[in-house]
Amino acid sequence: MKPLRLGALLLVLVACASSAADAPARSDDSPVDAWREVSPDNLILVATRYGTVAIELAPDFAPNHVARMRQLLRQHFYDGRTFYRVIEGFVAQGGADQDTSATPDAPVNPQHLKDWPPIKAEFDAVLPKGDVYTPLGNVDLFAPEAGFVNGFPVGRDPKDGRSWIIQCPGVFAFARDNAEDTATTEFYIVIGQAPRRLDRNLTAFGRVISGMQFVQKLNRGDNDVDEGVIGDVAKRDPIISMTLASDLPEKQRPHYSVLRTDSPTFADRLAQGRHPPREFYHRAASPNLDVCGVPLPVRSRS
Amino acid sequence: MKPLRLGALLLVLVACASSAADAPARSDDSPVDAWREVSPDNLILVATRYGTVAIELAPDFAPNHVARMRQLLRQHFYDGRTFYRVIEGFVAQGGADQDTSATPDAPVNPQHLKDWPPIKAEFDAVLPKGDVYTPLGNVDLFAPEAGFVNGFPVGRDPKDGRSWIIQCPGVFAFARDNAEDTATTEFYIVIGQAPRRLDRNLTAFGRVISGMQFVQKLNRGDNDVDEGVIGDVAKRDPIISMTLASDLPEKQRPHYSVLRTDSPTFADRLAQGRHPPREFYHRAASPNLDVCGVPLPVRSRS
Repeated sequence: MKPLRLGALLLVLVACASSAADAPARSDDSPVDAWREVSPDNLILVATRYGTVAIELAPDFAPNHVARMRQLLRQHFYDGRTFYRVIEGFVAQGGADQDTSATPDAPVNPQHLKDWPPIKAEFDAVLPKGDVYTPLGNVDLFAPEAGFVNGFPVGRDPKDGRSWIIQCPGVFAFARDNAEDTATTEFYIVIGQAPRRLDRNLTAFGRVISGMQFVQKLNRGDNDVDEGVIGDVAKRDPIISMTLASDLPEKQRPHYSVLRTDSPTFADRLAQGRHPPREFYHRAASPNLDVCGVPLPVRSRS
Repeated sequence: MKPLRLGALLLVLVACASSAADAPARSDDSPVDAWREVSPDNLILVATRYGTVAIELAPDFAPNHVARMRQLLRQHFYDGRTFYRVIEGFVAQGGADQDTSATPDAPVNPQHLKDWPPIKAEFDAVLPKGDVYTPLGNVDLFAPEAGFVNGFPVGRDPKDGRSWIIQCPGVFAFARDNAEDTATTEFYIVIGQAPRRLDRNLTAFGRVISGMQFVQKLNRGDNDVDEGVIGDVAKRDPIISMTLASDLPEKQRPHYSVLRTDSPTFADRLAQGRHPPREFYHRAASPNLDVCGVPLPVRSRS
């Protein structure tokens, strides 16, 4: 073993904080049934100049937003558009940019609103019975309860029985104007320390399962100028194409599997994260976990 | 106002989660004495192919690590070396890569250890009396107390009176091997959701105050292959140069100011972050803040 890398290895295995880490197939001892194959109906492929980003949609959390997204993808709405508002440590926003909202006091494009009428917000949902909620196992600073459902980081309120995707790095959501029910076509991906203020205030309905490193390469706007919108259009990174896997010929579809968060394998990994190896971590710390710092492993095969 | 951007503006102002956000001079009403100029003795400039990254050192937290870093910079140790281990959602590690540790059972370069003997860990410190600790104002999941000192996110233990820099995005630290006192020359920058497991287990002694978007552009390694080390040397992004500002002629030094975390202006901003505007945030959430999600503003002038 090479020095610094042994320690490094331990760091990676137990502490790698990413809900969107690339985790290609590795030889581990997890049983096959600990993994769930991502449905091509829920798999978005975003071609950027840096590489392909794969996003899994979560229809149980926001069925109408997922339906809208599938419509948009089928019509190639995003192809040739850009990531026009990218703020370091916060979000990468993409879509049509101009005149896409439904605010009465702002200039709008009537045709856009006719084509893509504003969607009613789906900030949270009562999940189908089959969706297994796996608790994180410790308190959260923001949600009454935090855990995982189908590989997504999830907040839950036992008072009203509603659940929502927590705005961890890699989470995919629709932007909106000030009013709740104003989302039309513009999406964002969280690229920084989880902006938990957005939880249950924006409709999150997916997460990046591969290629987060390409999202991180997107050119940024200036936080303090024009609200982060990249003024120089030439500096906006293009969305070369954005496609639903099920719209591709079957042979062209990539295949991803996500570690089931209701599997014993995931439970073991949670426990390991809570008590990292003393060989490297000499100072015992709090056994708490950050719901956005728990790796949610993904495998790919072509 | 353009639709989607008004909401966007609100998001940015109150929720932008980055301890390393670029925040060039803006017309706000903060008094001049709310800002502290960064000393050129504590200012590192890292030239990358994407742009320049500025890091502020924090000698009060780890004086020996800062002294070592200044020696390394004066001898141009890092110039022409690389970011050789970059793991999406975790850390970007740079330096010499090979044979830099002090582990007895690993191959080492005797000359390296002679030139740069391992440093005793400085995981935490008793701070000088003049360093004002500003509490975050709510509990933290990991530290007994969390807050800010001199613009750095800080954990504190009232039992032993010791403080440490929390491993938020943008934090700068030395890597080490498994044993505590094995750091020599290799550094890392946190690039993902705060890996709080590292708190008080690695010596953190600075933070990125500008150019975090360039760190995010660095090519990644494969988490599951060779512990994230980038095998194809051609894909490793070079450290073109890494210089202490005080080693530059005075006219060539850039100037940065950091918002004083013990200023009334910062206190106001904390309060605003705790209660974001209801115009956009329709669902009142927990008033808690994440210590790594609080913007720590920086201004630059040439």
